[in-house]
Amino acid sequence: MEFEFIKQLVKPDETTKIVLLVLDGLGGLPVELDGATELEAADTPNLDALAARSICGLQEPIGPGITPGSGPGHLGLFGYDPLKYQIGRGVLSALGIDFDLQEEDVAARGNFCTVDEEGKVVDRRAGRIPSEKNEALCALLRQIQLPGAELFVRTVKEYRLLWVLRGQGLGAEIAATDPQETGVAPLEPKPSSKESEKTVRLVKQFLKEAHEILSDHQPANMVLLRGFSKRPVWPLLSHVYGLRAAAIARYPMYRGVARLVGMQTLGSSDSVEEEFDVLEQHWDDYDFFFVHVKRIDSAGEDGDFERKVARIEEADTQLPRILDLEPDVLVVTGDHSTPSKMRYHSWHPVPVMLWSEHCRPDRVKKFGERTCLTGGLGPRIPAVDLMPLAMAHAGRLKKFGA
Amino acid sequence: MEFEFIKQLVKPDETTKIVLLVLDGLGGLPVELDGATELEAADTPNLDALAARSICGLQEPIGPGITPGSGPGHLGLFGYDPLKYQIGRGVLSALGIDFDLQEEDVAARGNFCTVDEEGKVVDRRAGRIPSEKNEALCALLRQIQLPGAELFVRTVKEYRLLWVLRGQGLGAEIAATDPQETGVAPLEPKPSSKESEKTVRLVKQFLKEAHEILSDHQPANMVLLRGFSKRPVWPLLSHVYGLRAAAIARYPMYRGVARLVGMQTLGSSDSVEEEFDVLEQHWDDYDFFFVHVKRIDSAGEDGDFERKVARIEEADTQLPRILDLEPDVLVVTGDHSTPSKMRYHSWHPVPVMLWSEHCRPDRVKKFGERTCLTGGLGPRIPAVDLMPLAMAHAGRLKKFGA
Repeated sequence: MEFEFIKQLVKPDETTKIVLLVLDGLGGLPVELDGATELEAADTPNLDALAARSICGLQEPIGPGITPGSGPGHLGLFGYDPLKYQIGRGVLSALGIDFDLQEEDVAARGNFCTVDEEGKVVDRRAGRIPSEKNEALCALLRQIQLPGAELFVRTVKEYRLLWVLRGQGLGAEIAATDPQETGVAPLEPKPSSKESEKTVRLVKQFLKEAHEILSDHQPANMVLLRGFSKRPVWPLLSHVYGLRAAAIARYPMYRGVARLVGMQTLGSSDSVEEEFDVLEQHWDDYDFFFVHVKRIDSAGEDGDFERKVARIEEADTQLPRILDLEPDVLVVTGDHSTPSKMRYHSWHPVPVMLWSEHCRPDRVKKFGERTCLTGGLGPRIPAVDLMPLAMAHAGRLKKFGA
Repeated sequence: MEFEFIKQLVKPDETTKIVLLVLDGLGGLPVELDGATELEAADTPNLDALAARSICGLQEPIGPGITPGSGPGHLGLFGYDPLKYQIGRGVLSALGIDFDLQEEDVAARGNFCTVDEEGKVVDRRAGRIPSEKNEALCALLRQIQLPGAELFVRTVKEYRLLWVLRGQGLGAEIAATDPQETGVAPLEPKPSSKESEKTVRLVKQFLKEAHEILSDHQPANMVLLRGFSKRPVWPLLSHVYGLRAAAIARYPMYRGVARLVGMQTLGSSDSVEEEFDVLEQHWDDYDFFFVHVKRIDSAGEDGDFERKVARIEEADTQLPRILDLEPDVLVVTGDHSTPSKMRYHSWHPVPVMLWSEHCRPDRVKKFGERTCLTGGLGPRIPAVDLMPLAMAHAGRLKKFGA
């Protein structure tokens, strides 16, 4: 559904409340054929009871076979077509470390790398230097002065850094300097717009001085930049859906993506329990709550089946706290699958259920990958379709046509 | 499927027959959790027997979460993308009272309203005056003479009226005068095309004179107009699908929408039985029959679960009469759901089955919301996809490509 279409159907004065509970990396795989997935193996009496009175299914975050990064995985759930609303890597890096990116800033993702005497890249990750070393080097790079622009260089992790230029009339249409291979020199930062030409001169000056400063800091003796981008200006949830939306998430990346669509970010909590505390405290102030539970995904990425099961069970124990708040609509799903068997994000559809007074329950009695296959939402509903459905079930959409 | 694509596959000389039986507002909800929907509760031996040899599923009339009006709900079933083929409110009003709208006419939906001494709207519906009062006032408004154009003012119901201007070179790109709120004056009817400028002068003259005529007819002392529109000119069913199509429907609105896509409207029948009489009488004359059964929806809108069940059972008893005619394809569905629990149209997908000699039956043995979930058409097939499927099952589409 196009935003322009949805917008004209939104009832402006509704006061119903929607909760989107994202169990990061929820979907999984059985380790053995005929075995259970992590969710199927987990003892989840609360999720199962909710499934029995919800409409269930499996949602496809981006499209068939597409493994979502965390940004696109969440944008779909927020109702933003992830193929249309794309976030540059530079901007994502900024979101990931809570950097307060301004509208005119140009951001890039940087790598410390190793170049040989001829200037050819021999290690794109500078031997994966520790974060402490990265911090010391970033402090050195921050000494570089560029005419008419302010420079920010921030440590992300290990060899990765955030590079931001702030000033007037800067452009971000600049090709990456990272050649994505070794044995060749870094690429020239080529501009593809008039506005970016001046910016490229600053990038070149930075790279030249960085090379000099880093020359005796082997293996991190050079910097590669890619994903030059500006903070996107998108329609906000308030504008499209008429929602006062809030995000409760521990990690900066999720808070950052939520802010891009106009959510207020609430508190920073250290545990699932604390996230639900925050939800309870702010219940009266918003119409839409995105609650993000990270640790399930982390267990999947560590390949720890049992820990992922335990994390799902932990989330299950907190579910009644949401129900006690009596939301009008509750959607439970993940932003993607992270099968512990694969130790990585995957393309597999993610179990989803939508509960509301007005949902049409199906025959699914248990929340799991295989049980949800016969649910009313179907086995492959696009993630982006969930938001209009949540809005409808909350009584927030008018009839289309007479 | 785009019409241009379908068109090139249509076999011109086929003589097979398709029946589309629309049980208006068919889909429902259980009143109690674990309860049955209206269709599930109904005793429908004929529908169930047909389901057992049909391909079944649930169709989504417009899109996820979108509640269809009757116009868009039917257009999808006729194979017209309801988001692309939109009908203005003025035209819909004309269709709804069987007004014979000409191609050049400009139609608008009108409300009698109440304005105060300063001309500000205090009641957009004029205290919901009875239809008889409306008729008397429309007779007065018909006295207004406009230069170079013919004026029609017709009662729709209570405070609602149809306003039509007939003449040469009129435009309908005119903004509504209905401010959609009280405490403000009616809006000026602003033109957004050259053609509409002249028309706007006539609209203004009408509104000025109407205000004078109605001044001592409190509370209906003014008229608001919106949805200025002309009868759309669309590809016809004969042109796209090569079908001689006929509509059997009691209510003007449905006949009107059917005429927009080129159906012939047959007789006006007072009961379901009579509708099937009409079908039998005209069986040899057409290839495609749209048969509309209204009373199921009416029961749903009245919130009368038991009556909706009874109306569904009534339709069930008539089903063998269609089968006796030996159609090549029979599609049974609704244009939208009308759960009696909600007393209103809703966004919930609608049970659908398609029978033909060539359909691939699934394992669905009973026609209902939950049984159809595992049918061969899937739990969320777009309504607009049914028409190409009906055409294929009728042997009316050629192979695509060599």
